[in-house]
Amino acid sequence: MTSSSSKGPPEKLGMGEFEIIAKFFAPLATDPGAFGLKDDVASVQPRAGHELILKTDAIVAGVHFLPGDPADLVARKALRVNLSDLAAKGAEPAGYLLSLSLSAQTQTEWIARFAQGLAEDQKVFAISLLGGDTTSTSGPTTVSVTAVGWMPLGTIPRRSGAKPGDLVFVSGSIGDAGAGLALLKGEKTAPQKARDALVSRYRLPQPRLALGLALRGLARATIDVSDGLLADLGHIAQTSGVRISIEASAVPLSPSLVEVQGKDQAAIVRAATAGDDYEIAFTAPAAQRDAVMQAAAQTNTPVTEIGRVEAGEGAVLLDTVGNEISVSRTGYTHF
Amino acid sequence: MTSSSSKGPPEKLGMGEFEIIAKFFAPLATDPGAFGLKDDVASVQPRAGHELILKTDAIVAGVHFLPGDPADLVARKALRVNLSDLAAKGAEPAGYLLSLSLSAQTQTEWIARFAQGLAEDQKVFAISLLGGDTTSTSGPTTVSVTAVGWMPLGTIPRRSGAKPGDLVFVSGSIGDAGAGLALLKGEKTAPQKARDALVSRYRLPQPRLALGLALRGLARATIDVSDGLLADLGHIAQTSGVRISIEASAVPLSPSLVEVQGKDQAAIVRAATAGDDYEIAFTAPAAQRDAVMQAAAQTNTPVTEIGRVEAGEGAVLLDTVGNEISVSRTGYTHF
Repeated sequence: MTSSSSKGPPEKLGMGEFEIIAKFFAPLATDPGAFGLKDDVASVQPRAGHELILKTDAIVAGVHFLPGDPADLVARKALRVNLSDLAAKGAEPAGYLLSLSLSAQTQTEWIARFAQGLAEDQKVFAISLLGGDTTSTSGPTTVSVTAVGWMPLGTIPRRSGAKPGDLVFVSGSIGDAGAGLALLKGEKTAPQKARDALVSRYRLPQPRLALGLALRGLARATIDVSDGLLADLGHIAQTSGVRISIEASAVPLSPSLVEVQGKDQAAIVRAATAGDDYEIAFTAPAAQRDAVMQAAAQTNTPVTEIGRVEAGEGAVLLDTVGNEISVSRTGYTHF
Repeated sequence: MTSSSSKGPPEKLGMGEFEIIAKFFAPLATDPGAFGLKDDVASVQPRAGHELILKTDAIVAGVHFLPGDPADLVARKALRVNLSDLAAKGAEPAGYLLSLSLSAQTQTEWIARFAQGLAEDQKVFAISLLGGDTTSTSGPTTVSVTAVGWMPLGTIPRRSGAKPGDLVFVSGSIGDAGAGLALLKGEKTAPQKARDALVSRYRLPQPRLALGLALRGLARATIDVSDGLLADLGHIAQTSGVRISIEASAVPLSPSLVEVQGKDQAAIVRAATAGDDYEIAFTAPAAQRDAVMQAAAQTNTPVTEIGRVEAGEGAVLLDTVGNEISVSRTGYTHF
């Protein structure tokens, strides 16, 4: 048999799994259904007239975050990439489960800061840790989160809901996180202020939960932009059996991105295929345009009309004279 | 920006994430709430009078399974270690989410066999894949499962429910999986038939779901035996604020284990601290002894009375004259 520490956290931590849970994670289990992390399971009480929404997504050091990224931001990103999916559906988050595989190099300080990041976001989003699992790995640290939320029965906007005649919208700005990653990897440089803004968009996504709620009953097909704007609208087009055409000049770019990359056609294509935006892209009937803009204003969330849904297939970028822009790849192929 | 395949499955697979999902995992998404894995989230419809039970647990190659273990058994083990927690609480499983981080060495054939294992167990347990995430990792393959089940409102037996005077029971036999792992690692040898039986207990846990259901209303404190019998009963003792004493001679050992390790005191201690048993250990009022044995008979599950709950603290093994057996470690320290 292997030694008792082989299945728990890395040995060099000098703390067992139970100590780590009691010290760092039990204080995060504020929901009564988490049983203070002192039982084998978590419980979620039913909520009248609602269905439960679930989403799981893992982030891996060296793939979805950089090993040197601050631990509190890693924790918050792991949480937020899942909350972003809930946001796109208009769900109200309730809590999350955490499955943490720690690399052999992990220090106690890293875990403390990781837990601190979770604590901060639990306050921001009014959610609780519901349960978890901590183990060691000979590979990179991997953080898998399963987010749990509520949605009124039978009201989930699906990827398949887009109809010809719908307008296409996107929240916030596109391409910032991609540029932030390129900056972190030293592939480009930027003035400090623009750099900070773009890197922050890579490290700390902003799930558009308030907007998602306000769009209930208005949006017909929704998706969160993680693979890239063009790729994700391509998912909607494919699942809905429609064509989505986007006016390249309408794709919203932030001032920081324009400062660093310009705003010519190549910059727009780059932004629309970068991924990691965690904005909401959605379609809505043309008659709802004003209501959509009201929802945006009410929630203080920028929303831009970027295109339309037509008969046909695929998602394409159009130039100013309506010609299709050739794009070699549409985005990341993760989901 | 990194290449499009850096976030999805390993490049050498020659298949993108969407292809892998469509080919291997979408057929497993039989529940309507999984939306055929064609949306960002999964939905679970409420069930009248029930609360939802959640459990997440990851298994890592080289830690919880051996890199050479057959992929179908890895998949089934990842699922079953979670179902075992549901079983211990008497919950009825509904489905699961899967977060899969694949090592760079992963072959398509491995994924195919992995999915085949899930398909087999979905039939055995009448559950559906609800959602998932596939990514690559530079480290060992990691399989994180979040299992979802149902429990009648307010009836979850807790770790904290044990009371002095309760009897202590355990299902099945203890120590087999630990011996199976030792055999796989070449730390010991055994005749082929005993070897096969013990290795199978390590690779393919049997969640005691039928017994768990039958014990509803009878068991007062329950836990699934994953850390080791003594360690897990120690968790009950600590959370309940009681002492649990186990008669070493009553700990159920399988014929195969006795054939390989004998049944002297050292063998019993080894079995009670080995872990990975995935049996249910539980306490029940003495007045329920007959009802417990009836539940065992009805579900064709061996159940053995092994000790009692007293005032005090800790979980201890007693020898035949009632003296405490000194044990250097109680079990694995994962949860």
